[in-house]
Amino acid sequence: MLLPELKMRRDKIRALMAEQEIDAALITCNVNLIYTYGRVVSGYLYLPLNAPARLFVKRPNNLQGEHILPIRKPEQLPELLAQCELPLPKRLMLEGDELPYSEYSRLAACFPESEVLPCGTRLIRQARATKTELEIEMFRRSAAAHTRAYQQNPTGYRSGMTYRELSIEIERLMRLEGCLGYFRVFGQSMEIFMGSVLAGDNACAPSPYDFALGGEGMDPSLPGGVCNAPLQEGQSLMVDLGGNFYGYMCDMSRVYSIGRLPQPAYDAHQLCLDVQAAVADMAKPGVSCESLYNKAIEMVTAAGMADHFMGADQKAKFIGHGIGLEINEAPVLAPRMKQELEPGMVFALEPKIVLPGVGPVGIENSWVVTHEGVEKLTLCAEEIITL
Amino acid sequence: MLLPELKMRRDKIRALMAEQEIDAALITCNVNLIYTYGRVVSGYLYLPLNAPARLFVKRPNNLQGEHILPIRKPEQLPELLAQCELPLPKRLMLEGDELPYSEYSRLAACFPESEVLPCGTRLIRQARATKTELEIEMFRRSAAAHTRAYQQNPTGYRSGMTYRELSIEIERLMRLEGCLGYFRVFGQSMEIFMGSVLAGDNACAPSPYDFALGGEGMDPSLPGGVCNAPLQEGQSLMVDLGGNFYGYMCDMSRVYSIGRLPQPAYDAHQLCLDVQAAVADMAKPGVSCESLYNKAIEMVTAAGMADHFMGADQKAKFIGHGIGLEINEAPVLAPRMKQELEPGMVFALEPKIVLPGVGPVGIENSWVVTHEGVEKLTLCAEEIITL
Repeated sequence: MLLPELKMRRDKIRALMAEQEIDAALITCNVNLIYTYGRVVSGYLYLPLNAPARLFVKRPNNLQGEHILPIRKPEQLPELLAQCELPLPKRLMLEGDELPYSEYSRLAACFPESEVLPCGTRLIRQARATKTELEIEMFRRSAAAHTRAYQQNPTGYRSGMTYRELSIEIERLMRLEGCLGYFRVFGQSMEIFMGSVLAGDNACAPSPYDFALGGEGMDPSLPGGVCNAPLQEGQSLMVDLGGNFYGYMCDMSRVYSIGRLPQPAYDAHQLCLDVQAAVADMAKPGVSCESLYNKAIEMVTAAGMADHFMGADQKAKFIGHGIGLEINEAPVLAPRMKQELEPGMVFALEPKIVLPGVGPVGIENSWVVTHEGVEKLTLCAEEIITL
Repeated sequence: MLLPELKMRRDKIRALMAEQEIDAALITCNVNLIYTYGRVVSGYLYLPLNAPARLFVKRPNNLQGEHILPIRKPEQLPELLAQCELPLPKRLMLEGDELPYSEYSRLAACFPESEVLPCGTRLIRQARATKTELEIEMFRRSAAAHTRAYQQNPTGYRSGMTYRELSIEIERLMRLEGCLGYFRVFGQSMEIFMGSVLAGDNACAPSPYDFALGGEGMDPSLPGGVCNAPLQEGQSLMVDLGGNFYGYMCDMSRVYSIGRLPQPAYDAHQLCLDVQAAVADMAKPGVSCESLYNKAIEMVTAAGMADHFMGADQKAKFIGHGIGLEINEAPVLAPRMKQELEPGMVFALEPKIVLPGVGPVGIENSWVVTHEGVEKLTLCAEEIITL
């Protein structure tokens, strides 16, 4: 990746460090290395406030460059910094919400004279919340590939197949369009394969994960998403696979039906489209996330559908979430979230309704916040498509 | 899952706790919840040394049972323990190598009067290293499904396709046989989609991950595994997809060729089969892991193939690894590993050679340690199969 792009990203982090009088960051988690160095390595990016970043790398063993040095273990860091004529940091930040406790402790022990702060995750996520032009361009490319895959979804259907089998064909279509498959989530307790294909009453099944709809899953070791039920006439299914084509996670859901659905399903789907339109119409820089959430709740309550909105017995407490290198970035469109939209933020908006006996309806698209409002990235037919 | 099985697993952990005079464990990482409770939940399993375990659960909201209580946040734990008439722990262990620093600190702060120890990960992994009869049975079922999928691998091949396209067809075959797809690895820096299909010189490409062979991958955000090169006559490819069918990760690699390979490739493949046979013949309870590693190195050195064994420029420093709920459990068959095999351990043995200009050859199977020796779980033809 071009150095000016990486420098811009690092400088966004540096600006936040300066506010906290932090004079260096030590970055070692994959997602933050992708952000600050452009790729995954096994090693450490040392980011001083007032000097160029250094990469200390264990693996791969074939990286070369002006500021790249080999390292075997983190205990070498002080000595390597001295070789680079860099002073030891006074206040050093580590990725405290991502690094395991023992690894954090080991790294902190390498800098006994420094004040070590765990705020690295928070600050870097704050920097990552507003995307650069290049990141938005990567989202556009990702969204285009995601759309190409979803347009082929109906070709995966064959009469008599199970939801699981249909899910597998749709996963394959995503992979053939270039989806990397790997699904990055912030938080060690959230696990999912490529995303979910939820159908019928399985969409109501509560799961341990904080995704928008649950699903029972195929095994208690991964209790979310698709189950093995047969496709049944009169049921809906929602395809919600993560669009990780170049590291950036687009998010998009579309609804399909086996034959004709009961009319209330179409009405509920239209309500979700209306919520999407109203929220997108309100959304612009300076608007708070909670006001967008409240608008959605107001509309579904007025329509008498609040009980079925964002889940049945167990509901998701958001209607949208920032996306980026991980599927759950800032901002979150949720109650009591005072955070305001800013230009360059990219988020998924996913008003969804679950109808017992039918299944999930609704919509999800990825949006970028512009200076004037928001722009939809995932351009793909939004009606319920009959298989 | 049956309570006697769960109790047996919990008692294995309790025995290790007793040695360290630890009177309670607080378990919240998914993989350890699967082990001790039989499924993923969002919540906490509190495991006292001398009383039944309690599950404090946030999500899903439909779990019920004698020792199951709802919880909203960890700060409620002391109060909930009091309700259960359980004393606060004197020495409490947390999952220190898995919990993020900030989450560990938050949990520790809930027990200000207790001595909090980070050894939970290490002790639970030690307990998990020897499998119960039921776990071995789950491995057998997993291995059978893995084999059924691999036997169909050649049907995914069509002339003119790329390695990536072939990989996608093979992934689909795995999924159709029931593979959950999700690939669990211990350590936050190891990321991989379902496994790898490595072909030609891509198998030599160094990656940041500590897997047996590297691969350049499709994108710098996930630099490992398959690349987009076309299938070429005279090249080999190795299919190494994780066999997670019921939570337990079987590991198996098989080699295919496009047309006929040069004779040295068949010789190197046979050498790997010979290494496998020799190591399997030695392996039994009481034998050290390093002695198995050394045996392999001795054989490939005598054959003049040491430079190509377990990678080219960047080598893996092991010939096998324990498997279980994660792909990398104890024991590790590596230099200086004094650990001895014990009955019930399950490991993958993967002698592999990379030939520049040709690709990877070799073998990987999953093995269970019995009282007398080892038994192969993954029973599938081992020769190089021409596509």
